[in-house]
Amino acid sequence: MDHMARGYQPTPGTTPSRYRERARYDSETVHRILDEALFCHLGYVRDGRPVVLPTMHVRRGETLYFHGSTGSGPMLGAKPAGLPVCITATVVDGLVLARSAMHHSLNYRSVIVMGTARVVDDDAEKLPALHALLDHIRPGRAADCRAPDIRELAATAVLALQLVEVSAKVRHGGPVDDPEDRALPHWAGVIPLTVTAGTPQPADDLDPATPLPDYLTAERRR
Amino acid sequence: MDHMARGYQPTPGTTPSRYRERARYDSETVHRILDEALFCHLGYVRDGRPVVLPTMHVRRGETLYFHGSTGSGPMLGAKPAGLPVCITATVVDGLVLARSAMHHSLNYRSVIVMGTARVVDDDAEKLPALHALLDHIRPGRAADCRAPDIRELAATAVLALQLVEVSAKVRHGGPVDDPEDRALPHWAGVIPLTVTAGTPQPADDLDPATPLPDYLTAERRR
Repeated sequence: MDHMARGYQPTPGTTPSRYRERARYDSETVHRILDEALFCHLGYVRDGRPVVLPTMHVRRGETLYFHGSTGSGPMLGAKPAGLPVCITATVVDGLVLARSAMHHSLNYRSVIVMGTARVVDDDAEKLPALHALLDHIRPGRAADCRAPDIRELAATAVLALQLVEVSAKVRHGGPVDDPEDRALPHWAGVIPLTVTAGTPQPADDLDPATPLPDYLTAERRR
Repeated sequence: MDHMARGYQPTPGTTPSRYRERARYDSETVHRILDEALFCHLGYVRDGRPVVLPTMHVRRGETLYFHGSTGSGPMLGAKPAGLPVCITATVVDGLVLARSAMHHSLNYRSVIVMGTARVVDDDAEKLPALHALLDHIRPGRAADCRAPDIRELAATAVLALQLVEVSAKVRHGGPVDDPEDRALPHWAGVIPLTVTAGTPQPADDLDPATPLPDYLTAERRR
């Protein structure tokens, strides 16, 4: 596991065909992106066709957890042999405007995890995974809500995917124009983009005396 | 095409297995989400395995365009028969915190487009598509940069996907707790999330006399 703690081995599946210099395989970069991304896109193959669904995830060590419901598409395929998936989490940091059309880009950080997801059947693994999914929404939330009961646990499918075939891709910094374009009169640079949390809006049926907990008060970036 | 202008016919591929009440098939909802989302996730099948990549897109009427590069994975598969893809664009609007763990959610709007993408070979279609991709970054940008030359055009692959097998999914509003949980002491509600554009950062090599164009001055939501 020492090896895993440092980084991931590139495979044909995780070697980009373009911009290879943007690829990263160190676990620090990979973990940070997976932890910062609020949700990911889950790809799988259904009847030979690709399907991509947004879903929430959380990382625990070298395992990525995400959930669905028993009876839904991905889950049916996941038993008992597991479901081949590709999980992609992307954080966008800015718009990159170059003088030339073709050098426009985004500053972004993404992680791609390929592998076979398994259904988490054991409640001893499932409960901490659900706990972590809640804390991924906002750290501290899992301890401040009603835990799932046995019926809810049974109705919730959690999938797990090991971080083995993994790569990150990072684009940062300003535009890179060709030398002959640099004197063109067009503005060039980066427009930063951030996700901002606004003022919490209490539920219509919330007792107005219920205080906003500390872990929700700070506006902060996701 | 009158039919298409109003909405899309559900198919087994675009009928969600969960939360069917969140599904939308009207073109107004679908178009608005595709237009607001800065980028999407493109899923396809490579050697039998799912692959999901983030990419920028733009909608023109009932066609979705997105680009890659000749020689990269998706493009090789796209000629001449086209490439089966699933394009998913997701906009997140807020964190939904319920009293019970299992009713936590996100407020989001997503669109899924399934179909066979074709390579755009004709420059008469490719150039306006690239123009639209630039204006999707910021309206007005396409007219304020150097247009691609013949060599750049040839090196850029654009894919097109018709909006036929399409669905949107929308979750909005506050948490929905079970009646017996409503008196629990946990705060419940929504934390809105928005993407905010920060102060434009000029490129290191930009002539300081270059003015910031009007279309970039307004901070606005993406």
